[in-house]
Amino acid sequence: MMDGEVTGVRTVGIVGLGLIGGSLALRLIRAGIEVHAWNHTDRPYAAARAAGIRCEPGLRQLAQLRPDLIVLCNPLRAMPQVLEAVGPFVDERATTLSDVGSVKGQVRKQVREAGLAGCYVGAHPMAGNELSGFGAADPGLLDNALWAVDVDSQTDYGRFLAVSSMITNGLGNRMIVLDDRTHDRAAAMISHMPHAVATCLINMLCDDPDRNVAAALAAGSWRDMTRVALTDPDRTRAMIEEDDANVAALLHDLAGRLTRLADDLQRSDGDALADFFSRGQDFRDFKRRVGHSGAGGGSRSAGPGDESPREADMRLDPLTWRDDLLLSARRGENIISFISPRHVRIRTNNAM
Amino acid sequence: MMDGEVTGVRTVGIVGLGLIGGSLALRLIRAGIEVHAWNHTDRPYAAARAAGIRCEPGLRQLAQLRPDLIVLCNPLRAMPQVLEAVGPFVDERATTLSDVGSVKGQVRKQVREAGLAGCYVGAHPMAGNELSGFGAADPGLLDNALWAVDVDSQTDYGRFLAVSSMITNGLGNRMIVLDDRTHDRAAAMISHMPHAVATCLINMLCDDPDRNVAAALAAGSWRDMTRVALTDPDRTRAMIEEDDANVAALLHDLAGRLTRLADDLQRSDGDALADFFSRGQDFRDFKRRVGHSGAGGGSRSAGPGDESPREADMRLDPLTWRDDLLLSARRGENIISFISPRHVRIRTNNAM
Repeated sequence: MMDGEVTGVRTVGIVGLGLIGGSLALRLIRAGIEVHAWNHTDRPYAAARAAGIRCEPGLRQLAQLRPDLIVLCNPLRAMPQVLEAVGPFVDERATTLSDVGSVKGQVRKQVREAGLAGCYVGAHPMAGNELSGFGAADPGLLDNALWAVDVDSQTDYGRFLAVSSMITNGLGNRMIVLDDRTHDRAAAMISHMPHAVATCLINMLCDDPDRNVAAALAAGSWRDMTRVALTDPDRTRAMIEEDDANVAALLHDLAGRLTRLADDLQRSDGDALADFFSRGQDFRDFKRRVGHSGAGGGSRSAGPGDESPREADMRLDPLTWRDDLLLSARRGENIISFISPRHVRIRTNNAM
Repeated sequence: MMDGEVTGVRTVGIVGLGLIGGSLALRLIRAGIEVHAWNHTDRPYAAARAAGIRCEPGLRQLAQLRPDLIVLCNPLRAMPQVLEAVGPFVDERATTLSDVGSVKGQVRKQVREAGLAGCYVGAHPMAGNELSGFGAADPGLLDNALWAVDVDSQTDYGRFLAVSSMITNGLGNRMIVLDDRTHDRAAAMISHMPHAVATCLINMLCDDPDRNVAAALAAGSWRDMTRVALTDPDRTRAMIEEDDANVAALLHDLAGRLTRLADDLQRSDGDALADFFSRGQDFRDFKRRVGHSGAGGGSRSAGPGDESPREADMRLDPLTWRDDLLLSARRGENIISFISPRHVRIRTNNAM
């Protein structure tokens, strides 16, 4: 590793010391990076300072420190306000702006409106749990996490390198490169839409006259399928509304499929049912290969079906790097480190 | 406890040494009960014998031992064959017939057709995992399990007592009493329909052109919501088809709700969305009370929101016991033991 040389990130400003912002700050400290932070209340400051985080009195002061990177970890609903407050004080020559929001198209639009598009490279770490607040922050929350780093045709390579090498070489995490549209559709598919489905399942249970009987019979399948419906419904609602067009399209698709399945069951259509129960076989096979403990090669558990990861090097062409990395993500590859500023190491066998 | 006195069950015949049948056999042995078993192949017999299970060469031999109880743990698709083979040799004066099938109306119909309705009391333990076969059997699989015991207007109290006291006093499990229709609707609600939804989610992922990107971004919510879709799809299909009318009705209901949610998202209908995200609050509150680790008071984890279980005694009236116990189940109560043949101890605070 040649962290310092590749990343050039020595100071990071964190906006919002919640579960993700706090965990990120603690992990950056552990990686030897100087972390400054601002939070909308100073409640977590005593605990944060004890952990080595330098807490700032305002967004202005944080920006004026000219950190190499400012990462917005505030709730998405606060994004316009935060951007308005921090915007005038960001020195774009010194600082790259990033965020950890779970939707990327909307944030880029807000960043553009705040006049900060030139220094922005958005990101989204796949990590979280049902807790919130700095009290729940833990650098281990990001163990083996995969990040999406979002680019568009304007993204500056140097800033992309700063964010990406911090994630890989700095934090020891993996990443893929996406455009906003692909990110937000995929996030709707594997998170936002399923959250809506889980919520709908508990609504149906509550509306059932025999709900106590059903709840008594509920075992592992029900527990797992409704776990995310138990978290703060306002947070879930915000997440779904922020990606509403993608979620709505997927819900219409799902509703159509479930209606067809119901019809096929009612008329005992054997061929249609055979198709329904075999259609997802590629995902079953994929999970068997990568292990059941985390999708896409998350925390792998050793097991009879596991393959050991294969790795390869990839050079990043100054003209085609965006498309090359997008295609790499579509092939199921993960970037695991920067060997030099134009040279990444990838893990190759995460494809379905 | 007065096990021997109350249960009168000293010998049990198990048909089918799969995951559930094997686990039940091992747990019965641990409870000091003599267990005979038959399996459609003798592959598991060496391991079963080593664990103290007496393995029989045929269903005829098993039935002719006149065990107090025969529990059919074979796959539901084999039920007509098994009933036909065992039927002529069951001595109804000595033996009560039970099963562990996940649908109860269909099994009762098949039992009736086999002429065995007079000695039948069906049951369904809420336990299982993604494994199968005797190799995966484990008496601990039934730790703290809840069983549904299904009755109809013909059910003989003495036979009901034999099955129920074996479950509670013998195995140390909890139970509720249901009629078949309530059981099969509730099982569709909390298991069979959600299995169909999980399968549909992985189908959608596989049909997505960006499936590798989506799979890479998948984290805990996706993993939990699709876990049951990774198990043997033929087993899932059989389970859903055996309860097809209930599953189809629930899928139509769910599809309608998801379509309305999609429409509400597309037109940003704040009131409708507020209703959607608050409608399941009773279930969230219920889970907070009983602990998150198991529904209906499963394996409880101590936590700030937990209530300690409240218990009460209930006398079973010779005329009204069926309706009384059904109402008890609807109130969210569990039977935890038989204090005497007409006197049960119930746990009362499992209601939403």
